[in-house]
Amino acid sequence: MTYCVGIEVDEGLVFAADTRTNAALDDVRVHRKLHVFEYPGEATFVLMAAGNLATTQLLVSRLQRDAAEARTPNLRQMRHMFEAAAYVGALLVDSQVKCQHTEHGHDGVNTQATLIFGGQIAGEHPGLYMIYPLGNAIAASPETPYLQIGESKYGKPILDRIVSPATRLEDAARTALLSLDSTIRSNLSVGLPIDMVLLRKDELQVGQQLRFTADSPLYADIHNNWSRRLEQAVASLPRFPWEAPGTDP
Amino acid sequence: MTYCVGIEVDEGLVFAADTRTNAALDDVRVHRKLHVFEYPGEATFVLMAAGNLATTQLLVSRLQRDAAEARTPNLRQMRHMFEAAAYVGALLVDSQVKCQHTEHGHDGVNTQATLIFGGQIAGEHPGLYMIYPLGNAIAASPETPYLQIGESKYGKPILDRIVSPATRLEDAARTALLSLDSTIRSNLSVGLPIDMVLLRKDELQVGQQLRFTADSPLYADIHNNWSRRLEQAVASLPRFPWEAPGTDP
Repeated sequence: MTYCVGIEVDEGLVFAADTRTNAALDDVRVHRKLHVFEYPGEATFVLMAAGNLATTQLLVSRLQRDAAEARTPNLRQMRHMFEAAAYVGALLVDSQVKCQHTEHGHDGVNTQATLIFGGQIAGEHPGLYMIYPLGNAIAASPETPYLQIGESKYGKPILDRIVSPATRLEDAARTALLSLDSTIRSNLSVGLPIDMVLLRKDELQVGQQLRFTADSPLYADIHNNWSRRLEQAVASLPRFPWEAPGTDP
Repeated sequence: MTYCVGIEVDEGLVFAADTRTNAALDDVRVHRKLHVFEYPGEATFVLMAAGNLATTQLLVSRLQRDAAEARTPNLRQMRHMFEAAAYVGALLVDSQVKCQHTEHGHDGVNTQATLIFGGQIAGEHPGLYMIYPLGNAIAASPETPYLQIGESKYGKPILDRIVSPATRLEDAARTALLSLDSTIRSNLSVGLPIDMVLLRKDELQVGQQLRFTADSPLYADIHNNWSRRLEQAVASLPRFPWEAPGTDP
């Protein structure tokens, strides 16, 4: 399993992904699931992947090769985000098929993957897409300003309650960390470290790229402080009718 | 689907359940899933059920009849909570089978149900159990002070972060409401109104029994205030290294 979340606010985009892959409970590894394609001043893209690791690694290698060798099409040629999403989707479908052939004989193997893909092309607004195994894509919107792949349920309520287009970019990033932390706590197949990228609108390069481990002071601080702050928030909620106003401990 | 949560803290027990049942997205009804068996001064039990409604209604009717007609065994005869849980579990297994017979010819029908059962018997500590379709049961504990049935994922992180044995009974109840509210927001098959019971330790009767609708002032207040309080809590989390200390809006 995996958990990745992408958030689109007015100030830009936040991407956050865990790094745990597992073939079984006793076969657990760390692999990067968040990949940056940066062409400063022209365009910057971020891809996060859930699903078959061979498929997604093949996809990333092909995206890098196509751009490096200036093949047609490639990410640097793209003029619109929806075209970039369609190109990545087509390459995803092809990579899934290629990995099926490679793994011929293992009939039960699922080579599918689901992606979150976002970024900004010079002259365009930033864009954030979820790309399905069939290659089709949907975009985030002001009403649905975040997209999730993998184990999405534990980390959804905090996003629903906090994130709106007006949320500051750093507050969206803190919310993404909380969403990851909730998920890591409840699903063993989602694990540290956490990769995070912030793309500030119109900078056309990666503003901040971070990796959080259990020892990262900021992550540890957030992890440890959050329960205390939630307790204070719960204690400050309305009283039940039978509670005297002065019954606070 | 359904969502019910039971919480055991030092001060007593909290039970909270939604009331939505659905055969399909276009076949949605309201049915009570939280049932009280109260014998003031002797014992009080609360049962919450997820799963086949025919099974759980049959089970509740049989528990009521057995006690009313002083059959052996029945809930009023129980001297220990684990025996009461075993009795309910055995009746659950039998009710599942009876409902299978009734629904003969509908091969695909799943008559299973899962229960949360708790309460207190005079002279005993309160107890809280999850009872599985096989009739076996596990108890809540100081390390795992809450039990969930049904759609449990959305509402789990808030419980993990707040609830411990030292949590005040009313704060546990507020946390249960937040847990339900998170779930209702994300899963259409979980819906208002919410039933809630608080059993204060050694009172041996139901202290508070509440039903919350969207119009209930307390629920509306919690529902509306929570996002604002969470936003404040997120804004007060540690800054990223590049954020100037005074960058708060």
